[in-house]
Amino acid sequence: MVKRFNLNYIHKRILSKKMLFKVLNYIDSNPGVRTPLLFIDKDRLIENTQIIGARIQNSQVFYAVKANGDPKVLSILKDLDIGFEIASLGELSLLKKLGVSSKRIITSNPVKSIEFIEALYSYGVRYFVFDSISEIEKLEKFAPGAQCYVRLSVPNEGSEWPLSKKFGVEIEDGLALLKRVKQGGILVPAGVTFHVGSQCLNPYNWCIAIDKAKRLFELCKTEGIYLKFLNIGGGYPISYTKVAPKIKEIEEKIHGYLKEKFHGKVKIFLEPGRAVVGECGIMITKVIGVAKRGYENWAYLDVGVFNGLMEAIGGIKYSYVPEKIGDEEDNLLENEQGFFEKAKKWVLAGPSCDSMDVIEKNVFFEQELRPGQTVLIPSAGAYTTSYASEFNGFPVPLVVII
Amino acid sequence: MVKRFNLNYIHKRILSKKMLFKVLNYIDSNPGVRTPLLFIDKDRLIENTQIIGARIQNSQVFYAVKANGDPKVLSILKDLDIGFEIASLGELSLLKKLGVSSKRIITSNPVKSIEFIEALYSYGVRYFVFDSISEIEKLEKFAPGAQCYVRLSVPNEGSEWPLSKKFGVEIEDGLALLKRVKQGGILVPAGVTFHVGSQCLNPYNWCIAIDKAKRLFELCKTEGIYLKFLNIGGGYPISYTKVAPKIKEIEEKIHGYLKEKFHGKVKIFLEPGRAVVGECGIMITKVIGVAKRGYENWAYLDVGVFNGLMEAIGGIKYSYVPEKIGDEEDNLLENEQGFFEKAKKWVLAGPSCDSMDVIEKNVFFEQELRPGQTVLIPSAGAYTTSYASEFNGFPVPLVVII
Repeated sequence: MVKRFNLNYIHKRILSKKMLFKVLNYIDSNPGVRTPLLFIDKDRLIENTQIIGARIQNSQVFYAVKANGDPKVLSILKDLDIGFEIASLGELSLLKKLGVSSKRIITSNPVKSIEFIEALYSYGVRYFVFDSISEIEKLEKFAPGAQCYVRLSVPNEGSEWPLSKKFGVEIEDGLALLKRVKQGGILVPAGVTFHVGSQCLNPYNWCIAIDKAKRLFELCKTEGIYLKFLNIGGGYPISYTKVAPKIKEIEEKIHGYLKEKFHGKVKIFLEPGRAVVGECGIMITKVIGVAKRGYENWAYLDVGVFNGLMEAIGGIKYSYVPEKIGDEEDNLLENEQGFFEKAKKWVLAGPSCDSMDVIEKNVFFEQELRPGQTVLIPSAGAYTTSYASEFNGFPVPLVVII
Repeated sequence: MVKRFNLNYIHKRILSKKMLFKVLNYIDSNPGVRTPLLFIDKDRLIENTQIIGARIQNSQVFYAVKANGDPKVLSILKDLDIGFEIASLGELSLLKKLGVSSKRIITSNPVKSIEFIEALYSYGVRYFVFDSISEIEKLEKFAPGAQCYVRLSVPNEGSEWPLSKKFGVEIEDGLALLKRVKQGGILVPAGVTFHVGSQCLNPYNWCIAIDKAKRLFELCKTEGIYLKFLNIGGGYPISYTKVAPKIKEIEEKIHGYLKEKFHGKVKIFLEPGRAVVGECGIMITKVIGVAKRGYENWAYLDVGVFNGLMEAIGGIKYSYVPEKIGDEEDNLLENEQGFFEKAKKWVLAGPSCDSMDVIEKNVFFEQELRPGQTVLIPSAGAYTTSYASEFNGFPVPLVVII
């Protein structure tokens, strides 16, 4: 039996018809397939890598493997013109298995274990980040001659997942660290990196950060340190329940600002993760059960906070497309007003017995949810399977690439 | 070289000397062992199972597998006089592999997939929980004849990990559901269950909950439904940074109250998880790097929120025992006042590049932390490896049983 899905005005804005067609076709051809399952669209993945970085002159793109380190995803990316940003021995080992050359690998983890530094160095990686004396000392000992860049802390306002405080230093400290690198004479002080925060909806954040980096470049010059590259990190947003600004538009803004500040004279690195793989993924999940709790309607899915939707508790608002049951009418509502008049509020929870495993408290559906019903979650390609654990015995999503 | 550790007044209160001796011995005999590593003390595990339930008349203990489902832990428990509480096909499969009989298995997950109900039923499990019409309908279809108990919601104040709202119904709804079960004539309405919340430091919570359950038992009688058992869930606390009330004392209070309300006439089920395995575990971890960020001292461990210490962001306050470096003096301070005069504040973070991966913001150490240094985390046996994922390529802790 062909399943039909109830697309509301949100889904129609964020879901590509081509991808939806593929996923529906997959569901119909594999009626017994085990859920949760993360469907990844290969064509979309390739398209995204062609868009990202295209509008920034003199730039090179490194995919942040943490967003989705599935070997099948990495293997597709390996055949494209894209590098990789990694943070651990585990991620290095994934790339080594695929035969990715060290020239295509950088690490932007400012606090690395000695074992990881040694392994990267012996594999031939020569780009390393730092933001502390402790890290410089390790790099001097285990990665002599490496090109090093300092992580600058920059404002994260307007990002849905701000990163501030865990990493990064202010301009003065950054300068002091780069001077320390120069004095050591073992490493090459080569650049600056920053991160505006994940899912950054405010393009202006990049401008502030670029401005801050430029000031550090200038201060370095007065000390005889000539930096060559600027890593502008990740942070490009994708569409979950709201339509995100287009990457093309964000990059035009960034490019304009970079040109004004650096006149095309520095090499630019980018580290997108979410923007590469997020919108390529649709999670296929099923309703396990429903319950009325006081005035609240609860539905329990076979995917939850621990086995795939960790970001839901960090602020990401997914959208949910329920299967139509029986001969429910097609939903023709195209706007918010009509939708909320008709819809009923639900709490969505994951399958485990853990109270933290509540995905979202305010989700609106125009129809009832029932055990066994399929629910699609668009834009679920990034930071889902990579965070997932089998807590309480519930399996992590299968990853299927079409 | 024999490592020495800096025990402060907190550690001396919560760590058993016998266990500490074993773990230090293990570290010295295995200098190159990969960290993070979760050390589990088998003797302590066995002791705990002997203490729990001992003071509650007519009771039976079912270990909540979600606390730590490591096959080596389960295998030890299998040889003891203890049952198992499970929530998923994955957990059932672990027990089946060990040959645990269905008589020793219950499930207290109120919202189960049909596949899980079928698998339990065909394995011979006959105790099931519910708290919704939807679940009763599934059980009638796939577990006819089963003994069923309703999940009552009870106050969770005073628990460090409250569970309220995700599961459980109020008395009136509980009665209506049990009547519905009786009318159906397919399932046996057999009991009531509740959960006071994990790490419950207030023994009075059990009294309120028992009182509430008793009222439901009475109302059921007026409807001709004679319930036979009461599942008082888990929630026994363990010592992290504060000394928890002793299980013996909590059980004496619970037993007294049960006797007053039920006169020893109902069968009592217990579902401890944390209390069975929590204090048996010591996490062995290493400092990867340190950094000064403004006025803050940051240290980065090889275990963090995603690969073992998820509960740190939910409110659990672990204690941390750093290795002594060089010829640092023994710490002889026995009280809080002297400690805080001497100690320096640190922020502890995990190894990943994720900003959520900050373990704790206010940890006090009397000594410096340095890369490579070992740090022990006591009371880390429960809800650590079971939540852990390999996010960002960092390995989950090895589990070693001594």
